[in-house]
Amino acid sequence: MNLADAATPALVLDRTRLRRNCERMLAKCRSLGVRLRPHMKTLKSIEAARIAIDPEHGGIAVSTLQEANYFADCGIEDIQYAVCITSDKLDRAADIAARISRFGIFLDGVEAARSVAEHRHADRFGVWIEIDSGDHRTGLAPEDSKLVEIARIITESKARLVGVATHGGHSYSGRDSAAIAAVAEEERLAVVTAAERLRAAGFTVPGVSAGSTPTAVHAASAEGLTELRPGVYMAGDLYQAAIGSHGPDDMAVSVLATVVSHRPEHNQIVIDAGGLALSKDRSTAALQGDDYGYGLVMDLQGSRAFGRLVVDGVHQEHGEIRGATPLPFDRLPIGTKVRVFPNHVCMTAAAYDRSLVVDGGTEVSDTWGRVSGW
Amino acid sequence: MNLADAATPALVLDRTRLRRNCERMLAKCRSLGVRLRPHMKTLKSIEAARIAIDPEHGGIAVSTLQEANYFADCGIEDIQYAVCITSDKLDRAADIAARISRFGIFLDGVEAARSVAEHRHADRFGVWIEIDSGDHRTGLAPEDSKLVEIARIITESKARLVGVATHGGHSYSGRDSAAIAAVAEEERLAVVTAAERLRAAGFTVPGVSAGSTPTAVHAASAEGLTELRPGVYMAGDLYQAAIGSHGPDDMAVSVLATVVSHRPEHNQIVIDAGGLALSKDRSTAALQGDDYGYGLVMDLQGSRAFGRLVVDGVHQEHGEIRGATPLPFDRLPIGTKVRVFPNHVCMTAAAYDRSLVVDGGTEVSDTWGRVSGW
Repeated sequence: MNLADAATPALVLDRTRLRRNCERMLAKCRSLGVRLRPHMKTLKSIEAARIAIDPEHGGIAVSTLQEANYFADCGIEDIQYAVCITSDKLDRAADIAARISRFGIFLDGVEAARSVAEHRHADRFGVWIEIDSGDHRTGLAPEDSKLVEIARIITESKARLVGVATHGGHSYSGRDSAAIAAVAEEERLAVVTAAERLRAAGFTVPGVSAGSTPTAVHAASAEGLTELRPGVYMAGDLYQAAIGSHGPDDMAVSVLATVVSHRPEHNQIVIDAGGLALSKDRSTAALQGDDYGYGLVMDLQGSRAFGRLVVDGVHQEHGEIRGATPLPFDRLPIGTKVRVFPNHVCMTAAAYDRSLVVDGGTEVSDTWGRVSGW
Repeated sequence: MNLADAATPALVLDRTRLRRNCERMLAKCRSLGVRLRPHMKTLKSIEAARIAIDPEHGGIAVSTLQEANYFADCGIEDIQYAVCITSDKLDRAADIAARISRFGIFLDGVEAARSVAEHRHADRFGVWIEIDSGDHRTGLAPEDSKLVEIARIITESKARLVGVATHGGHSYSGRDSAAIAAVAEEERLAVVTAAERLRAAGFTVPGVSAGSTPTAVHAASAEGLTELRPGVYMAGDLYQAAIGSHGPDDMAVSVLATVVSHRPEHNQIVIDAGGLALSKDRSTAALQGDDYGYGLVMDLQGSRAFGRLVVDGVHQEHGEIRGATPLPFDRLPIGTKVRVFPNHVCMTAAAYDRSLVVDGGTEVSDTWGRVSGW
């Protein structure tokens, strides 16, 4: 099948770009002397994981237990569930953990640590204590007294303390390489400091995990880290391109859509990809001069044939392409298929249960499943 | 099962409120003397459709062929696919149409009309010509000369012209009952004018369809209309409550979430429902003084026990509750389950493949499937 004949809207994944993005990140991690633990939260697909996994180490990170379950079913033996766990999720996590060699969980509180320690299958869990390196989402400050308390609760139980981990998500607000490199250094220092504090208190801390795509790309040093845990680099998107995580032609995921209506009197072309197909993520609105609305419209080949043509508005199933200058109605007749590149691919990809795989062109060489939900 | 024991995040549907919302809309349509054709784009569930369907008429509207296929499988015999169709979707539409009594499609262009007329299964399609009543999404202006041309193409083919239809989506920007009633009148006049033009040109126009939830609620007259086609009223959300489509206690859909982290130093509570679980729709940001962030946090019973507590920020799997005054940490310990009411329920519900059904309380009496994708 060719993309020209595919039902729309559909998710398109360019495997050539995916491979290139994965090779680049693996090379970067090797140059820093750390393991790459690819975070599968974006593509949620075993085929993508097989391309992304660091061949020297294996193993992935995931963002939901549903993903963990899926990848365990697919034979991945080392899975890190990189979101703070609560007691109500432990039974299900333990069931997954029983089927694979290494299952890691995150926590940042004394209560959660006690729940894990007291769980009848505590021995199945490798515990990562989450550290806040400046993102202020979850995690303990490196100097928090609870750090040692949590480590003690875990090491006195049948669970294993496998490390400390952080996510420098505030790197997303960096606007240049220097600013993001500074966040990478904050990320590294926070989690290495936490590891050193625990070691000084007598604990063994084998793992020191950090990572986001921007910090992994811009980090100058990974001293003291054992692994990096980026995810969105595999797919790439307009936001990551704008902040310099990859080049403008590295975006591997787009939404295939069809022109359904012309409204020349409103200088508007309507496509069949709206808020559900593109997501309502407007990340690029924060970028001065780089606001791409709900996505950048390219041709079927994924080339910028129309210049800066964007989806300016969305309804549930309609996307409205508008422009300051007259739109190219003659080049986009009703029925034309276009590819829309998203602001934030993690949000966009989540609406689909499969991807149409192309290798640089428009011929669909494969269809990959993906897992959704929780 | 009780909601207190359910895995999170999960979609919760209060059947008591759904029934009440459906009864109210049916009564309104009866008082206006028109048929109610419930639009299933929000809940996408057969159980919800059975409650919503007008018992005198049957039949629904849908927003995707996937929905049409699902509802046809479930035995619904009258389905209107209320999004302009293009030629590449006709084969699939024809397959669905073959299995039910009445299948309606929308179009607004001469090319699309020709594609339908020339399709080998044109006889399976009932065609609604879409009219733009001011929303400027898709549709023809009522005075557009193509209206008669399209009607001629359809009536000279084996397809049937079943009517004209419009959606006054610009009612969403109305801020009071009078403004929305004015849009309802625009909607009615536009589509009735189009129907009259076609009749004057000699065509039979049995159906005159209009509708959005706000216009259906606030319309003073439906003279000349045969049906209304609202959808979101079944579920309700913060935006619809704010613009007066229903009361604050009519919202039937919420997201069940668990408190996973306390950050008192940042006056922040983190829940396990983030951008994917809540959607990134920020509709209420447009409402002066009624901005609910990414959703309003209520207790497990769905009561406003915490006042105006909102999800202020989201990451992919994390929601950050922040407030101007100190948060009620003691009333929301780690592991507490809360219900988050969404800005725009159509976007939020789409992330789930099922709903946990409650009847006013917290006991889960049923689980309803829902269809996703295209």
